Amino acid sequence: MSSERMIYLPLGGAGEIGMNAYVYGYGKPGKERLILVDLGVAFPDMDTTPGVDLILPDIQWLKERKNQLEAVFITHAHEDHVGAVAQYYDQLGAPVYARAFTANIARQKMAEFGHSEKAVTIVAPWPEVVVAGPFKVGFVPISHSIPESSGLVIDCPHGRLVHSGDFKVDLEPGVGEPFDAGLWKEISASGVKALMCDSTNVFSPLKGRSESGVGPEIEKLVAGCKGMFIATTFASNVARVKTLAEAGKRAGRSVCLMGRAMQRMVEAAIETGVLKGFPNTVSPEDATGIPRESLMLIVTGSQGERRAASAQLANGKYRGITLKEGDTFLFSSKTIPGNERGVIRIVNQFSEMGVDVVDDSSGLYHVSGHANRPDLDLMHELIKPQVVIPMHGEHRHLREHVKLADSNGLQSVLAVNGMMVDLSGNKPKVAAYIETGRTYLDGSSKIGALDGVVRDRIRMALNGHVMINVILDEDDEPLGEPWCEIKGLAETGNSRAPLVDVLEEDLSQYLGRANAKTIKDDDKLEEGLRQVARKSAMTEIGKKPEVSVIISRLSA
Amino acid sequence: MSSERMIYLPLGGAGEIGMNAYVYGYGKPGKERLILVDLGVAFPDMDTTPGVDLILPDIQWLKERKNQLEAVFITHAHEDHVGAVAQYYDQLGAPVYARAFTANIARQKMAEFGHSEKAVTIVAPWPEVVVAGPFKVGFVPISHSIPESSGLVIDCPHGRLVHSGDFKVDLEPGVGEPFDAGLWKEISASGVKALMCDSTNVFSPLKGRSESGVGPEIEKLVAGCKGMFIATTFASNVARVKTLAEAGKRAGRSVCLMGRAMQRMVEAAIETGVLKGFPNTVSPEDATGIPRESLMLIVTGSQGERRAASAQLANGKYRGITLKEGDTFLFSSKTIPGNERGVIRIVNQFSEMGVDVVDDSSGLYHVSGHANRPDLDLMHELIKPQVVIPMHGEHRHLREHVKLADSNGLQSVLAVNGMMVDLSGNKPKVAAYIETGRTYLDGSSKIGALDGVVRDRIRMALNGHVMINVILDEDDEPLGEPWCEIKGLAETGNSRAPLVDVLEEDLSQYLGRANAKTIKDDDKLEEGLRQVARKSAMTEIGKKPEVSVIISRLSA
Repeated sequence: MSSERMIYLPLGGAGEIGMNAYVYGYGKPGKERLILVDLGVAFPDMDTTPGVDLILPDIQWLKERKNQLEAVFITHAHEDHVGAVAQYYDQLGAPVYARAFTANIARQKMAEFGHSEKAVTIVAPWPEVVVAGPFKVGFVPISHSIPESSGLVIDCPHGRLVHSGDFKVDLEPGVGEPFDAGLWKEISASGVKALMCDSTNVFSPLKGRSESGVGPEIEKLVAGCKGMFIATTFASNVARVKTLAEAGKRAGRSVCLMGRAMQRMVEAAIETGVLKGFPNTVSPEDATGIPRESLMLIVTGSQGERRAASAQLANGKYRGITLKEGDTFLFSSKTIPGNERGVIRIVNQFSEMGVDVVDDSSGLYHVSGHANRPDLDLMHELIKPQVVIPMHGEHRHLREHVKLADSNGLQSVLAVNGMMVDLSGNKPKVAAYIETGRTYLDGSSKIGALDGVVRDRIRMALNGHVMINVILDEDDEPLGEPWCEIKGLAETGNSRAPLVDVLEEDLSQYLGRANAKTIKDDDKLEEGLRQVARKSAMTEIGKKPEVSVIISRLSA
Repeated sequence: MSSERMIYLPLGGAGEIGMNAYVYGYGKPGKERLILVDLGVAFPDMDTTPGVDLILPDIQWLKERKNQLEAVFITHAHEDHVGAVAQYYDQLGAPVYARAFTANIARQKMAEFGHSEKAVTIVAPWPEVVVAGPFKVGFVPISHSIPESSGLVIDCPHGRLVHSGDFKVDLEPGVGEPFDAGLWKEISASGVKALMCDSTNVFSPLKGRSESGVGPEIEKLVAGCKGMFIATTFASNVARVKTLAEAGKRAGRSVCLMGRAMQRMVEAAIETGVLKGFPNTVSPEDATGIPRESLMLIVTGSQGERRAASAQLANGKYRGITLKEGDTFLFSSKTIPGNERGVIRIVNQFSEMGVDVVDDSSGLYHVSGHANRPDLDLMHELIKPQVVIPMHGEHRHLREHVKLADSNGLQSVLAVNGMMVDLSGNKPKVAAYIETGRTYLDGSSKIGALDGVVRDRIRMALNGHVMINVILDEDDEPLGEPWCEIKGLAETGNSRAPLVDVLEEDLSQYLGRANAKTIKDDDKLEEGLRQVARKSAMTEIGKKPEVSVIISRLSA
């Protein structure tokens, strides 16, 4: 009979930036008691996931072991860490633990799904710990770009693990606790088996900059603006929102928060006591009555999201406000790779209005929330773990972080989603490969990434869609001609006749010469009609469309 | 009777980076003799133009005036300048002029459309000029990222215009002529009415760097590589391809060009004499027999294009070659905004193979082909035009370039696509607004951007597609139940029954209660069925799909 082991298994977040979900286990193989750290979402895009609302990790493995699952711990309130917690609460049935601000956000999500606020338990920071089966888990405050981010200290009989969470090394983060090197050193003094560590900025060679450096630059910018000043940043970056609001206030401007997320985040931060001394704000209604040179808007939509306040302002009037020549719009944010087109679109719209747009290309108006390379070195040095396991990154980030650990003389493992690592011995080893994947929230349905639904959407978008309708009577004789409809295809092609007419003519001819065996067989007939339609379309318009065939057989 | 005027009218390129097409005219209003400078394409993306092959400028205005059109001049062989020249040759019927290398590329395109090579006339550089109606046009060599780029000197009875073309200030461009400040000064000495000027890099604050700086850095990188060295860049950047090949050769490696465009561009450059002393290369077939540490590949696909060599190598074996641990892949290029996702995808694939990827984040391995802000200042200073008209840029670039001209004490006009500017007097004035737009090449068809075809594709991709089929007999009685098919939608929803069954049930009920008037009216019936299907889908899966309805009426 084998003895207890300690395992680590990422189900999301190790191979992408998004949908973080990391399992830890302790016990006899196959009988481990489990905890889950974070349960987040990723965001869809038109290229690979058109029409999808959210991307969730596939937690099938965990669902099949729900009676082994002791608890879920949420490190901080970013969507890629907390976004799926309410979605999956019923299916996992485990208590959720978080610090107050994170819990506030998680509870809002729970409420949307009809769950009680008791689903989420508020935990005080380290040295308080939560006992979850064989684990003791403590939330150690760590600086990031949202209040009350935490690294987790995870103790089990085999030793101590440190899960960094998302972090940066910031001694003056503005809102929330500064990075506390002494505390991390103290926590690690008795030895750490493994450090699971944020890898997002491993390619950034320079030491990270402090949130405190941003304020003075923004103040200068606001001071020089003659019209309305509008700024956008991530709503969850409460420290930045405060910095912006204070810059507005110092310049004698009324400050107005615009966009639901912006208001909700600031409320949550005030309610939970993490945000104090936030300047008074005016409502969007009152803002319309204030002269533009005395007004500052802080708005959602730093990534060019179509429905957010910034995009609405770019489209024209929004909540009674129209931007114009002489106004300044600041992106106090960076554009996440993949969102460039959306951001550039609104920048050009503002340009057409005569609005001056300032972005972070100067490096003055934004700082990242993640640890850069030298900051990762520091973390390695403070924790001195037996093993570094890079997480929170695409493959390229994890691989580079492994190299960095090597160069710091530390063992490391490149563990991607689904790779179960046994941390029990002195050398980590791969214990198993678990099937993982992505689940799409699509409207109110959850669909598997490999179900073919999204593949069909992409194909219709690329190729257009032909629908064919054939009616056969009791004797398998066609009743009238085949009917066609097209969607997403040119109406006329090379022959200058309507494409639909050409298709119907070719299909009709095919039907006329098809033998009885084909006519009687739905599959054969459908395939025959599809081939004819595709060939015909190729000749006419140079494209092979998707084809759907409906065969109706009339019975007596 | 009004007198002659001189006009400028961008049909593409002034409001986007891509599909450049600039009209110049001289003559009595409405009777101007015209020339066209450049006739390029833009590239589609999944967000806004799924399935489209190429984006062309809408040249309706010019087609209606083809008997006023004297000639087309192509400044250089980049696709956004030359890409549509063969597509539209028949419709414009005007002779095309270009320098030898550009003509070589243009003639290849003409041949694909069955046009003779005589369609393109080769022009020697300034001081040679082409007489085209009232215009005299000269090609002045200017440095850019492709051989034989030219600025145009356009003389007409009202004075001299300078059309910069795409350019950078590079005194050592490697291949092709260096920037010649003295020549531009001389050309401008007698006065220039207007400078139409590249705006691409107006937001780049530092002086542009020379192509000559890239070679030594690449050599160092190649020297340090123990496995195969693979580099990608734009195939048209012949100077860079040469730099890469020379670095490979100096490191004792055999060089292999991979990808059709790469081979074609190098051939064109050798054929036209602009590229001399290019190292010997080996074929892809021979490359497979060479030890990896002695091999360098130069491949297409710097933008992550799915079918290019780099993406194929990232997918696995390509032309007998598989990359592996220890190999180095260099992006000697920048990622064009919007292409990030594709590039990141292949970088992660390489990472999974263990290949080290080096990109331009260090700034060492790539230089831009466009004039930065201080270089634009220099151009303004050399030409000293009466008016600066920014071109080759999105609205934000054009607007910033106008500001830059202002700060240099020069008049300027922000002229977007469709704005006709009269340059006759001392102050430019807007003469008219012309309807312009985009034409999509889609398979072999040309479709208008506003035709609704692409809009339908996007809607199917976002919302999925329901097809409904109803058969009515001679008495308007439904023959059987309505039939449904779905594509791109979840197969089951909230009720756990198949979505198709739920839809058919609801549609059947609707049909049962619809009154005779609705049943007899195709439009009404179709709309009724559509509404029911959308509502039913919303309840079941939380989405409102696109719906196509086919009603078949049987007649006696």
